[in-house]
Amino acid sequence: MTPRARANVEAMATGTSTTAEHLRSALDGPWRAVREQARTQLAGEEFTDDPELDIHAARARVLEQMRVIATMGYPERGFRPENGGTGDPGGAVTGLEMLAYTDLSLWVKSGVQWGLFGGAVENLGTERHRDFIKRLISLDLLGCFAMTESGHGSDVSDLETTATYDLATQEFVINTPTPSARKDYIGGAAHHARMAAVFAQLIVGGESKGVHCLLVPIRDELGADLPGVTTFDDGLKGGLPGVDNGRIVFDHVRIPRENLLNRYADVSPDGLYTSEIENPSRRFFTTLGTLVRGRVSVGGAAAAGARVALSIAVRYALARRQFADPDTGEETLLMDYRSHQRRLLPLVAKSFALAFAQNDLVRRMDLIQRGQDTEPSSQRALEKRAAGLKVAQTRHATRAIQECREACGGAGYLTENRLVTLKADTDVFTTFEGDNVVLTQLVAKELLTAYSDEVRDLDALGWVRFAATMAGDVVRKRSGVRQLIQTLRDRNDESVDEGDLSKRDVQLQLFADREDYLLRTAAHRLRARAADTGPFEAFNNAQDHILAAGTAHIDRLVLEEFVDGIAEIEDPDAKALAETVCDLYVYASLEENLAWYIMHRFMSVERAKAVRRGVNELVDRLRPDALTLVEAMGVPESMLRAEMLHDASVFDRR
Amino acid sequence: MTPRARANVEAMATGTSTTAEHLRSALDGPWRAVREQARTQLAGEEFTDDPELDIHAARARVLEQMRVIATMGYPERGFRPENGGTGDPGGAVTGLEMLAYTDLSLWVKSGVQWGLFGGAVENLGTERHRDFIKRLISLDLLGCFAMTESGHGSDVSDLETTATYDLATQEFVINTPTPSARKDYIGGAAHHARMAAVFAQLIVGGESKGVHCLLVPIRDELGADLPGVTTFDDGLKGGLPGVDNGRIVFDHVRIPRENLLNRYADVSPDGLYTSEIENPSRRFFTTLGTLVRGRVSVGGAAAAGARVALSIAVRYALARRQFADPDTGEETLLMDYRSHQRRLLPLVAKSFALAFAQNDLVRRMDLIQRGQDTEPSSQRALEKRAAGLKVAQTRHATRAIQECREACGGAGYLTENRLVTLKADTDVFTTFEGDNVVLTQLVAKELLTAYSDEVRDLDALGWVRFAATMAGDVVRKRSGVRQLIQTLRDRNDESVDEGDLSKRDVQLQLFADREDYLLRTAAHRLRARAADTGPFEAFNNAQDHILAAGTAHIDRLVLEEFVDGIAEIEDPDAKALAETVCDLYVYASLEENLAWYIMHRFMSVERAKAVRRGVNELVDRLRPDALTLVEAMGVPESMLRAEMLHDASVFDRR
Repeated sequence: MTPRARANVEAMATGTSTTAEHLRSALDGPWRAVREQARTQLAGEEFTDDPELDIHAARARVLEQMRVIATMGYPERGFRPENGGTGDPGGAVTGLEMLAYTDLSLWVKSGVQWGLFGGAVENLGTERHRDFIKRLISLDLLGCFAMTESGHGSDVSDLETTATYDLATQEFVINTPTPSARKDYIGGAAHHARMAAVFAQLIVGGESKGVHCLLVPIRDELGADLPGVTTFDDGLKGGLPGVDNGRIVFDHVRIPRENLLNRYADVSPDGLYTSEIENPSRRFFTTLGTLVRGRVSVGGAAAAGARVALSIAVRYALARRQFADPDTGEETLLMDYRSHQRRLLPLVAKSFALAFAQNDLVRRMDLIQRGQDTEPSSQRALEKRAAGLKVAQTRHATRAIQECREACGGAGYLTENRLVTLKADTDVFTTFEGDNVVLTQLVAKELLTAYSDEVRDLDALGWVRFAATMAGDVVRKRSGVRQLIQTLRDRNDESVDEGDLSKRDVQLQLFADREDYLLRTAAHRLRARAADTGPFEAFNNAQDHILAAGTAHIDRLVLEEFVDGIAEIEDPDAKALAETVCDLYVYASLEENLAWYIMHRFMSVERAKAVRRGVNELVDRLRPDALTLVEAMGVPESMLRAEMLHDASVFDRR
Repeated sequence: MTPRARANVEAMATGTSTTAEHLRSALDGPWRAVREQARTQLAGEEFTDDPELDIHAARARVLEQMRVIATMGYPERGFRPENGGTGDPGGAVTGLEMLAYTDLSLWVKSGVQWGLFGGAVENLGTERHRDFIKRLISLDLLGCFAMTESGHGSDVSDLETTATYDLATQEFVINTPTPSARKDYIGGAAHHARMAAVFAQLIVGGESKGVHCLLVPIRDELGADLPGVTTFDDGLKGGLPGVDNGRIVFDHVRIPRENLLNRYADVSPDGLYTSEIENPSRRFFTTLGTLVRGRVSVGGAAAAGARVALSIAVRYALARRQFADPDTGEETLLMDYRSHQRRLLPLVAKSFALAFAQNDLVRRMDLIQRGQDTEPSSQRALEKRAAGLKVAQTRHATRAIQECREACGGAGYLTENRLVTLKADTDVFTTFEGDNVVLTQLVAKELLTAYSDEVRDLDALGWVRFAATMAGDVVRKRSGVRQLIQTLRDRNDESVDEGDLSKRDVQLQLFADREDYLLRTAAHRLRARAADTGPFEAFNNAQDHILAAGTAHIDRLVLEEFVDGIAEIEDPDAKALAETVCDLYVYASLEENLAWYIMHRFMSVERAKAVRRGVNELVDRLRPDALTLVEAMGVPESMLRAEMLHDASVFDRR
């Protein structure tokens, strides 16, 4: 090894700086102990993926890994003590999230078993299903979560699978009436699952009661499909080779009456349907609401994947050189190029922001699911926040990992350097647990309906009507949307420029202004159009506007959580660094929305130019701390597993 | 099948409309016959990939496919008649591009053999290498193109491999002096190649003569590494499983003197180095320039991959429904959602633009390589244009295929629907044949140096100095950059708004204005900074600005080619439709750069809002023609191979 190579390696190996330690502590959040334990427990080879395996071997390997995980206390956290768990919802999500650092197939398959299948039984079942929970925790019972159908993924309330109560035998008959009713993309359905939590239209006494969840055995102990059940393998996917996604078709499969998960509704032996929730739509959303942990988890795992990728790409950029600097004759580190700093550092900043936001989300979820926050509005707010952060984090992962791959050039394309696996595995995260477009729309609709329970159950027609009314309210309260717009436009450039853009309150105000303005104008636009066209036309015509409002809301939430997160950092160096990272997050976000800000007179042209310059100045300022920032993101070096970070061709140069 | 499903299928199967035929004819370009022949020849199962195969079987399959292709006249087009070819460079690129419709591994491996390895021997060799060409056309000789090293990919002139002339034996000694000198990512090096076209620093009489290319046998007939040669397998990659990329390390490997490809330089038996090109740097760039076909081809294949993905995603959106429309009770087609139209149709429009631009590029290349355009500036212009369009097309492919995957939801993630394979296979296209950032910079530098041959050879220091001078020229010619800026700023919103944005000349002017302004201000900025800081600092500080200038240039070129392409369409309906597609390309491009246009006073806020509305109006207007546009892109249905386009769960709905 040349002296220079040695110096490089030593520089990389001096260990985590104190500042990085403080920052990592802050980013680790309330379940830091869970994370620290996982960093030790999961670092070994036995938990990594093996990209050489075919899908059958990969799935078997992941299942074996789950059997080890099951002995380490991970699954129990997600269940109440009376069901054999330790009752630590936040710890459950955080612990499983750490699996994403080592292998996303392991994370997904564990999430399906303990989070989705287990969560359905835990949250929708009652005492009579308790034994299933004990068995699924220990993996004695392998299950799957059969909600999505080939024909209906986003529109879950229109699922076609039926569960018809047969009074004569006191059984439910599960059936797949059409090709599009086939259960599809179901993790575990291709091979390992013995039982499915099936979402189906419940039909009692010839009457449809809406979507309910029932436990349906699908395979015998030897793995053969049970009578009336036909499973198919979805085969190869873009990634996640260790997850056996498949399809299930039911041909009048009979299950005991007791297999209905009856927490919110039940059918008595003599065929009487009862529910404590009268409104069918509200019942359905209450059912779905209990499953929010899935959405919380997906966002967290996507963000974890992005942190791994950024850790790899930044470390590579701190070692890899290309083109001689004419000033010195030395070849230049990738990280010293302005373009490279601009590619990677804003994504690192966004990862910081999202980590704080995710910690806060998990904290909120934990309080509600432990029963410490029983405010009815909290659950509703949690669902909206989980949807929004799922979108933000999965979108970020897709973009960040792609950028990391490209920023590492040809080396980035080799599987041994892991970026392509991260990209392939996380790619579906923008789709599952709610398509990002649909979820963004959901967030925006929630905002527009001002969290009113009454309108949640409205169909599209009713919803547009409501939004129209609500816009009217806004008009009254604010002396008219038009006037509001006018007021905003009347701000001249000077006055907009008065606030110091480096001040946090000014930044927060800019984010809030964008959300506020987009929401109010969207409501107004819906109202104006709904009169002329049908409600679908009105809504569809404003769809890009509505989506922009949802995105603006998410951006504002994330910034607020970043600011809150910083407030809790005590070490002054760590705090100062976090403040600069927050500035970069703000400036980069503003830069992405620059056209909007100028067009709507929230920013003068001069200020817009200052934003662009500001991004450059901030990446310059953060350049010396690049390694500290990566260490703070908290992916241990032992879990990076990118060959190029140890390759002599990078470190041992002439 | 339900009546509705039947109607759907019939609607999809009525065959290509006349308008689509006319458009397709225009997009097919000058080598339409080659494309039409390939559509028939390559549609069969025998040319598809088989994603179930492991990499060893996949590589073997692709090699077998190449043996069939070799009998069909594809490779001969790329070589001159005296070398056993048919002398049709444009047909060679176009014919191979069609392979991208069926399998990108097949395209890459064919491109390596006949384009890169074959092209090196054809263009850098002389009569004494003629026999190699005949053998490589027929695949009697399998070769690879060993340029990139682990330590140097973008910075090719600093390759470390050495080829030292040994006067005593009249041989060259090929050596890998350092770990970073290892040849890497070389297609064919892992397994199939018997010979490598090795780029190495030529050392004669102890003096370095710069990078030259030599033919080095690397394996014997049984596939074993020859003495002194050690090959390694790069193993799994993000995609392209059928391509055996690998590494080569040379330990003083001796080859005959005649194996130097001696078109531009030779070494006599007694060790005298001669070249018709005196300047070593110019000699190097001349050498690289002859290899421009690779860059032309990569852009074309990436764009072809994007067309396949868009054909799949648009057809799926024309069949798949989700959420009932409250006006009709019918579920809504994905393609009827504004958000979906906005996701896909601007990408279709860009595909049209790039197809015209690529046709023009291939035409220019063909004229030069046939010797019909001997203007020295043409070759230089071709290289710049090829670099720019490589960037535009590979960037477009990465973005478009990602969007298509997400727009098809869970189905899009299944390998059987092909989008993930297209994504994985094309992902490295932004990297190979020139990293996109480096190439964009190259384009910008070329523009800044005003195509002056004298400065091409400058190092970074000299280049910055030159740019500074050139900025001075601009200042003189235009009475000062500052004044120019002032003039532009003095245009008030009204006067900017005078031109009708729907007029093509106004659109062209807006694109040209952006390029012009960015270039001039970049030159000015470099000049201003170079005095204060070192040249690297000056350049690096302006890097984002310089890259923006390069991108603006590429955007302008593409629009001009789109406009030229439309001019050649005779059918009035096809022409009218193409004009609307062009409008969408323009509006969507302007929308992406809206902040810039407003900030630099090229657009008023009102006009910027009109651009945003215009995108919505144009996707609305093009919605009924979505299928026509896809048919016009020219990927035959038989080559789409996405299971979901025939799935009963999509077509046979209740």
